[in-house]
Amino acid sequence: MIAVMDNTIIKELQQCVGKEHLLTAPEELACYSFDSTGQSFMPDAVALPDSAEQITTLLELANRYRFPVIPRGAGSGMTGGALPIKAGLVIVFSRMNRIIEIDADNMIAVVEPGVITGELQEELKKQGLMYPPDPASLKFCSIGGNAAECAGGPSAVKYGVTRDYIIGLEVVLPTGEIMKTGVRTEKGVVGYDLTHLFIGSEGTLGIFTKLILRLLPLPESKTTFLLSFSSLPQATGLVAEILSAGLMPCTLEYMDKTAVQVVRDQLAAPPHKDTAALLLVEFDGFREDVEKQSEQFTAFVQQHKQKSCSLRRAADETETAELWQARRSISPATLSLRPNKISEDVVVPRSKIPELVAFTDQLAGELDLIILTFGHAGDGNIHVNIMVDKNNEQEYANGIRAKQKLFEFVLSLDGTLSGEHGIGTTKSEFLPLEIDRTALSIMKRLKTLFDPNNILNPGKIFPDRN
Amino acid sequence: MIAVMDNTIIKELQQCVGKEHLLTAPEELACYSFDSTGQSFMPDAVALPDSAEQITTLLELANRYRFPVIPRGAGSGMTGGALPIKAGLVIVFSRMNRIIEIDADNMIAVVEPGVITGELQEELKKQGLMYPPDPASLKFCSIGGNAAECAGGPSAVKYGVTRDYIIGLEVVLPTGEIMKTGVRTEKGVVGYDLTHLFIGSEGTLGIFTKLILRLLPLPESKTTFLLSFSSLPQATGLVAEILSAGLMPCTLEYMDKTAVQVVRDQLAAPPHKDTAALLLVEFDGFREDVEKQSEQFTAFVQQHKQKSCSLRRAADETETAELWQARRSISPATLSLRPNKISEDVVVPRSKIPELVAFTDQLAGELDLIILTFGHAGDGNIHVNIMVDKNNEQEYANGIRAKQKLFEFVLSLDGTLSGEHGIGTTKSEFLPLEIDRTALSIMKRLKTLFDPNNILNPGKIFPDRN
Repeated sequence: MIAVMDNTIIKELQQCVGKEHLLTAPEELACYSFDSTGQSFMPDAVALPDSAEQITTLLELANRYRFPVIPRGAGSGMTGGALPIKAGLVIVFSRMNRIIEIDADNMIAVVEPGVITGELQEELKKQGLMYPPDPASLKFCSIGGNAAECAGGPSAVKYGVTRDYIIGLEVVLPTGEIMKTGVRTEKGVVGYDLTHLFIGSEGTLGIFTKLILRLLPLPESKTTFLLSFSSLPQATGLVAEILSAGLMPCTLEYMDKTAVQVVRDQLAAPPHKDTAALLLVEFDGFREDVEKQSEQFTAFVQQHKQKSCSLRRAADETETAELWQARRSISPATLSLRPNKISEDVVVPRSKIPELVAFTDQLAGELDLIILTFGHAGDGNIHVNIMVDKNNEQEYANGIRAKQKLFEFVLSLDGTLSGEHGIGTTKSEFLPLEIDRTALSIMKRLKTLFDPNNILNPGKIFPDRN
Repeated sequence: MIAVMDNTIIKELQQCVGKEHLLTAPEELACYSFDSTGQSFMPDAVALPDSAEQITTLLELANRYRFPVIPRGAGSGMTGGALPIKAGLVIVFSRMNRIIEIDADNMIAVVEPGVITGELQEELKKQGLMYPPDPASLKFCSIGGNAAECAGGPSAVKYGVTRDYIIGLEVVLPTGEIMKTGVRTEKGVVGYDLTHLFIGSEGTLGIFTKLILRLLPLPESKTTFLLSFSSLPQATGLVAEILSAGLMPCTLEYMDKTAVQVVRDQLAAPPHKDTAALLLVEFDGFREDVEKQSEQFTAFVQQHKQKSCSLRRAADETETAELWQARRSISPATLSLRPNKISEDVVVPRSKIPELVAFTDQLAGELDLIILTFGHAGDGNIHVNIMVDKNNEQEYANGIRAKQKLFEFVLSLDGTLSGEHGIGTTKSEFLPLEIDRTALSIMKRLKTLFDPNNILNPGKIFPDRN
């Protein structure tokens, strides 16, 4: 790889996207140097292309001059997927943000990667349609980034994640060829499933230029319950029981005591200060169906846990919106506790959540750390935030130790290191803990097959020394 | 590739699986020579291994002596995936048919490939659980074969296909290594999605030895409607409208006039003989929800199509079972019309079903053929059966012409050549019509990466000359 781009390259890049769409001034580059990890790496240049053909040219230049190319969604990623860790050219999709088509008859949408997820959802709502994946960052994250990381969200417990809604792609390969994958029909089994190979590949196998999305009818109604527990194990223990009872919530979120505390001020009716944990549970569907499920859920709670928890149903949309605002604010609000955090999104089989949460509590005690747990309990995807001050060497070292121990414990529970954030740079050294040697070797050979010169997002997923 | 296996190889194969589990007598081999295409190719030997380790040894021998290995589920495939077209060793999984685990708390099952899909479903039902994919052959097809072909079924309109329910695999690679993919949690985004790359790869990339399945709670109730139409376009036109209206049937099957005729005798209350088409529509869920959906559906039908169709709700389970028996018998019953058939399972966006069906009618007229259409209208997956007598040269040639024209038309409607049967040998020459050159090249390079000696199921998906 070249150290710094020289003027010849910069000129060729300018010719490709137009001078006004190639950024090189340090103050401009700084805007594309960071992501939600809090880390920052300066790229050599930032291109804002307008078409797949322009991206082909950019990649051809990258292969000729051997500079890294880093595709960047909205920079809301949690694991460094969009960071230009080896400098090079960042590609930004803010000009490729068109909703090309919404085909309501066939419940399909075709979009460009720069479309903001929440904005697409608003557009679809107008037509009685839904694109379910709902990462906490939905107001600013982009569909392209969601696809690259296989983003999830609270609705995954009922509706699944990004990979369940992308049925076809237009991709520019690292070598510059434009390729189509998948279908624009509900079913399709023609040739190998390249679409799913790209989803979650964290920008290392290709650059998405069009995405074909499967949509659902918008549910008629939704209702929100809040359960406050005075006992943590009873909260976490209830999760698997709710789902085993045949109830099918569209949200089953969990917040521990500390997570509740950091967002307490945002709530008009804050929970009792001795609250050990909250569950946020929602049901959607036809109005009658929602009522039926609500009745069943209320009866279920009364039967199972009446002593240790109180159940409240949100009175109206304002209260629901407030609860969600609080839930989505947990991650940024944690920084009021400590200046830095190690943020993980491990998954365990949901019956093992109590063990996981008990383990993190024990770990916090042993290593003298603040560790929060919250997240998508319904699918076992628990966000573990290990709070540290990086300037406090001992605390930071303990945080890193806690992360290693957490991962080992999660794997011992038949869990996985990441449910929706991906590996990026922050977890790459731990990849061999989960992925066996044969699979790791196949994955690396796949990367080489698609990207022989390793120009696309180098250093992600697979650490150089792996 | 070797022409015929010599005694040295046979002895080594016997040593691997045990003499009693290696078949070589012609009358035994004949049992594993065919599939549902009606074609037959004699293998050199059939092995019935009992473990992944034995399969490793078989594949190591195949690489050493260069003989083809053909993994075979239950032989119910429609496109030749299990046919030993170049002879070699057929691997059969009837001894690897254990349900290893049903984890009701986490709604996950771990099974071996030889488990019969319908038998698994019966076991799960006892625990209030459901594995949704329901190919017509569910009473005899196996999970391993379903995974290899990415089988679908009527329930796909609501629940999706096999790929939506397999979250992890144990696979023996063509080179003999045993590898794990995926997770046993609801979510997981660690490394590339190898699981989905294997699903639908038609036994060309690896041999499944364990499958981790995601389950759902068994719906409390289900109801069945039968709609008889005197007008074909009104039947096909209603499909997209039903789904656009926000109704969410778990079945939306369609049968044209000829399909109805071939199974008419099986019905206690056969439809009027002037029936132009039938729709079979089902709703499932909580009892109240099913009633609500039934009411909405009845109102919808009355509002939209009261003149050209009649609506009947199945009185009881016996009537429902009879309707399903008839529906599942269509494919074999067609052979009463002509001794052979060209059976396709194309998919179009569902709003384009009327165009597709009109086209096949026109084609039948032009080429003087019987062409039936039936199948999973809800997801646009229409089974087109072109009936021919192979001994009638002109008719067979016309059948082949009809297939080519059908494929071209389907692609012009943004459709795909196969929704659930795969490519196998019967459609491989048409693959380049749908898959672009770049994608085809990537797929072939993937095949070589996994199987450098091309010993696993050679000649499938990619025709040798492609």
